Amino acid sequence: MLGKVIYLDNASTTRMQDDVVNKMINFYTEDFYNPSSIYSSSQRIRTKVEECRALIATTLNAKNNEIFFTSCGSESDNWALKGIALAYASKGKHIITSKIEHHAILNSAKVLEKNGFDVTYLDVDENGIVDIEALEKNIRKDTILVSIMYANNEIGVIEPISQIGSICKKHNIIFHTDAVQAYAHVNIDVNKENIDLLSVSGHKFGGPKGIGFLYKRSNINITSVIEGGSQEMNKRAGTENVAGIIGMSEAAKKAFENIDNTTKYEKELRDYSINRILTEIPYCRLNGDKYSRLSNNINISFNFIEGESLLLLLNKYGICASTGSACTSNSLEPSHVLLAIGLPHEIAHGSLRLTLSSQTTKEEMDFVIDKLKDSVNILRQMSPLYEDFIKNNK
Amino acid sequence: MLGKVIYLDNASTTRMQDDVVNKMINFYTEDFYNPSSIYSSSQRIRTKVEECRALIATTLNAKNNEIFFTSCGSESDNWALKGIALAYASKGKHIITSKIEHHAILNSAKVLEKNGFDVTYLDVDENGIVDIEALEKNIRKDTILVSIMYANNEIGVIEPISQIGSICKKHNIIFHTDAVQAYAHVNIDVNKENIDLLSVSGHKFGGPKGIGFLYKRSNINITSVIEGGSQEMNKRAGTENVAGIIGMSEAAKKAFENIDNTTKYEKELRDYSINRILTEIPYCRLNGDKYSRLSNNINISFNFIEGESLLLLLNKYGICASTGSACTSNSLEPSHVLLAIGLPHEIAHGSLRLTLSSQTTKEEMDFVIDKLKDSVNILRQMSPLYEDFIKNNK
Repeated sequence: MLGKVIYLDNASTTRMQDDVVNKMINFYTEDFYNPSSIYSSSQRIRTKVEECRALIATTLNAKNNEIFFTSCGSESDNWALKGIALAYASKGKHIITSKIEHHAILNSAKVLEKNGFDVTYLDVDENGIVDIEALEKNIRKDTILVSIMYANNEIGVIEPISQIGSICKKHNIIFHTDAVQAYAHVNIDVNKENIDLLSVSGHKFGGPKGIGFLYKRSNINITSVIEGGSQEMNKRAGTENVAGIIGMSEAAKKAFENIDNTTKYEKELRDYSINRILTEIPYCRLNGDKYSRLSNNINISFNFIEGESLLLLLNKYGICASTGSACTSNSLEPSHVLLAIGLPHEIAHGSLRLTLSSQTTKEEMDFVIDKLKDSVNILRQMSPLYEDFIKNNK
Repeated sequence: MLGKVIYLDNASTTRMQDDVVNKMINFYTEDFYNPSSIYSSSQRIRTKVEECRALIATTLNAKNNEIFFTSCGSESDNWALKGIALAYASKGKHIITSKIEHHAILNSAKVLEKNGFDVTYLDVDENGIVDIEALEKNIRKDTILVSIMYANNEIGVIEPISQIGSICKKHNIIFHTDAVQAYAHVNIDVNKENIDLLSVSGHKFGGPKGIGFLYKRSNINITSVIEGGSQEMNKRAGTENVAGIIGMSEAAKKAFENIDNTTKYEKELRDYSINRILTEIPYCRLNGDKYSRLSNNINISFNFIEGESLLLLLNKYGICASTGSACTSNSLEPSHVLLAIGLPHEIAHGSLRLTLSSQTTKEEMDFVIDKLKDSVNILRQMSPLYEDFIKNNK
């Protein structure tokens, strides 16, 4: 086993803090009751669950009855797309999304296409920003839903959500945003930004895995995807994951209390690190907009190398990093996000994502960048592409 | 607050044991990594998840790649019905289920009916046993799926699963069973019993809420319901609920280690209690088969009273009980299960479910039955129906 681990994969999942976990434990052992039962012990749990719902609603400037607990961000995304498509199919069968969405959106969209829906996938510019003009041009009479992610999971770019919300409102089209990477990292106001539905995953901001939620504006209809009992206002069946709900809302509370400090700290460390990498390692580029970007995201492409080989070398030093999304780590395909921003296949394959947290230190980043320099150098020395390039440029 | 609580609602949810919870905690804090990432710390978590999958597979005599983790029993049920319907629609659009299934099955079936499927709902006899002859008579050329629950959540009746499995095998029809109440309470062998799909919920046998699984025989196809990343062999997207998986499999391990002792203990206490109630309280009846019955289930109907009022009186003594399913506790409708076994509406409304655990003591049951006698008596004294009955039978 390795010694110290340097965790730079916070977009993949996050470490839970002890005090958050400690608040959950009681709901497994002493207060384990089913919140839907009638006796006092259960009603006490019901009260706790509803307090969590209220807490989360407050973080988005939403109403309590607009928060629906789900099992994860992917479920929320699937539900938003399929549930809205089913509820509004009689009004129209056109949906607009982007080319850089998470696969929970893209694959749900594909299913809808197979079922008679027409989906437009908007382009993004070289920085990953969705083409707003194209959005408005592509709106049709039968457009029922626009789904654009709040912030991208690979390159960290924050999309112009307020503008998209305004356009959707103007055309009376439902607007969903996948905020799995953004929630509790960015301040969001669903009313000011005209967001009708929003997906969240608990484990991306210090909550447990296996819990998420969907915000749905109260005047919007949605068809259920998981049917059964009358839980979640009759919209999502299954016994409530009480401990998960407690853990997620506690983590949200902590994240929002510290959001300004965390963002400021992460941004400084992010920009310091990006600057060092771009300055000290030749033939690399930053992916994703430099300014409209999650405070903790670094995504860099290195010419002439394979991202996976780089990860394995960094792993030897205890550095946890990724090439992109963990959800597609079994795939040999290059990232659809990097292709969408115009990277050639071979450069898209040589990308590294480092996602920081408020616990990440400058010392750690300096160590990581030193090892990154060495590792990139080692891999390039082994690369026939690099050899050719150097020969041709002598 | 009340003093001591006597928990007799184990069919609704179960208390987790400290040692099971303690095994989970590490996966929130130290070993919090995403099992789909590439670095060593993640691969260690991947190994743990796969060990849990293997452990659970063993409990059913299934193969490892036949266990798919989900968020709950309801999701498993929805997935089984909708996923099989979608995958085999070209072969046929007829499904057979029963009238006493959980609403996760019944409501999924209703959705399929709206989408062009034909569903036959089999009757049950007065003891809740599915009509096997009717099953065979109702099989058609276009029947693709039979879904019959292993054990009923309200009246505890255990269905003749082996017989149903044999019939399905003979006719080459896929057989799903909702084993949410049965798994880890009854020994199940998916091969001997010819079960093709089986739904389970973790929190019904000492595991956490928010985790479940679907067993699916490897030669059966299924369409995904939650799409996105490549988790769960590309069949169920979403970051794995690692701590939930650990907790569920640990609880399963403990339950199966003790299953014979637990069953024997519960059966004795159950039969002692049923006998006392039926002997000492007039005008009541046991619902569900006396012999083919979950070891921990007592379901009794009391003439002339409302089940909800009874629960509230019992609650005053710290007794946690239910009228039926917690999932439908918001509904004023009488139980569809009790109607299906032939109870008139007014008697179905006066039912009480007590579900024991290995922790329940004879002293507790004696206390509960004493209070039950008093409470039934109090409610009958207030009941105009009872007053009429007594007048007419003097």
